[in-house]
Amino acid sequence: MRRELFDLAGADSALRFSPFCWRTRMALAHKGLRVTTIPWRFTDKAAIAHTGSTQVPVLIDGERTVVDSSAIADYLEQAYPERPLFGCDAARALTGFMRNWVERCVFPALVEQIVVDIPQVLAPADVAYFRATREKRFGMSLEAYCASRDASLPAFRELLAPVRVTLASQAYLCGAEPAYADYIVFGALQWARCVSRRELLALDDPVSHWLDRLLDAYDGLGRRAVRVGPEA
Amino acid sequence: MRRELFDLAGADSALRFSPFCWRTRMALAHKGLRVTTIPWRFTDKAAIAHTGSTQVPVLIDGERTVVDSSAIADYLEQAYPERPLFGCDAARALTGFMRNWVERCVFPALVEQIVVDIPQVLAPADVAYFRATREKRFGMSLEAYCASRDASLPAFRELLAPVRVTLASQAYLCGAEPAYADYIVFGALQWARCVSRRELLALDDPVSHWLDRLLDAYDGLGRRAVRVGPEA
Repeated sequence: MRRELFDLAGADSALRFSPFCWRTRMALAHKGLRVTTIPWRFTDKAAIAHTGSTQVPVLIDGERTVVDSSAIADYLEQAYPERPLFGCDAARALTGFMRNWVERCVFPALVEQIVVDIPQVLAPADVAYFRATREKRFGMSLEAYCASRDASLPAFRELLAPVRVTLASQAYLCGAEPAYADYIVFGALQWARCVSRRELLALDDPVSHWLDRLLDAYDGLGRRAVRVGPEA
Repeated sequence: MRRELFDLAGADSALRFSPFCWRTRMALAHKGLRVTTIPWRFTDKAAIAHTGSTQVPVLIDGERTVVDSSAIADYLEQAYPERPLFGCDAARALTGFMRNWVERCVFPALVEQIVVDIPQVLAPADVAYFRATREKRFGMSLEAYCASRDASLPAFRELLAPVRVTLASQAYLCGAEPAYADYIVFGALQWARCVSRRELLALDDPVSHWLDRLLDAYDGLGRRAVRVGPEA
């Protein structure tokens, strides 16, 4: 059966960095499902126009097309109920809270840390699109938006305190084994890791140790990811 | 069977305001368990010395004594498994994340909003204890600590964005019905509500509507709570 994922890529088509696509790739791996990823770029709207979406991830699973990472997770859970991504109804609901915490609280701080590094990994056509859309949203250049990022790094790390404290008493956010709420946080940090060489986490941070375990999971799916070069 | 809860009280012994005790009272109500609450004050260390704790809540359940709100929730879930407080293992783990988010992110902002109002509800002996311990911790007077609270109120409300966004798509943080993660957030807001007349939430905030539903739950256990008077 045809199973394909449109996955955000850089100038190097092997460099994949979308936090939302990483959630989906980890979810597919969690379910033990193989997928062919199709590199997609911000300006490739035409390539996914037939799906009705202007963004990735987009999953083609046989006859089904599913857009949006949350909808994909729900679809996978229904279509492939073994190895649950959520667990009981309460766990699914609390996973929703985790998603909202990451998107409302972690993403803005993470963007300040790394958004200026993103153009260096993008394909030429995407650079102009990315700068124009983001600089309009921020009301300033990417450079200005990130100008205080060194000073903000301690606050970024402190923002992750609830993750850190939770990991002091359990191996994963979802308990003894990782599940979708882990992949939501993982996606954010893997995004940063793929586009930037900034050391966002201290090496002795329990969050680093958890990230290492997830990078090694599923035959090192995350660890094998192509990252921006150290000289970029 | 004897079931008693040592519960933090103000000068008015009917005024109960501990966020941790409110978690426990809601958890007991969730389980359908009746309890006799014993008013306890910060300086009543002797009254609970036999339990090994210096803080409340302390639950006496027949022959068992359990201290600490999280330990009490775990105990109740094990001893009275009907009407689960958590759900599956992942839900329990994610409830731990919620607790850490509330305690690390919400409490500090909430303390800035309300801590200066707390002495007005305390018994005389507690006022000196409370001021001394908190002012030492903050390195300043309670008044100084709360001096910018009006300016900080929008940021406090924004801090609750992950709760607000989650409640846009589900009735409770735990889904269609409330469970312990809801009571953790409830406890924080009920604490504020009992010691302060500040309007921390906008009336049209979905968080207010959720709080209203929880205040009405269990025969209005939370709604019936004695609050500080409007003239205090």
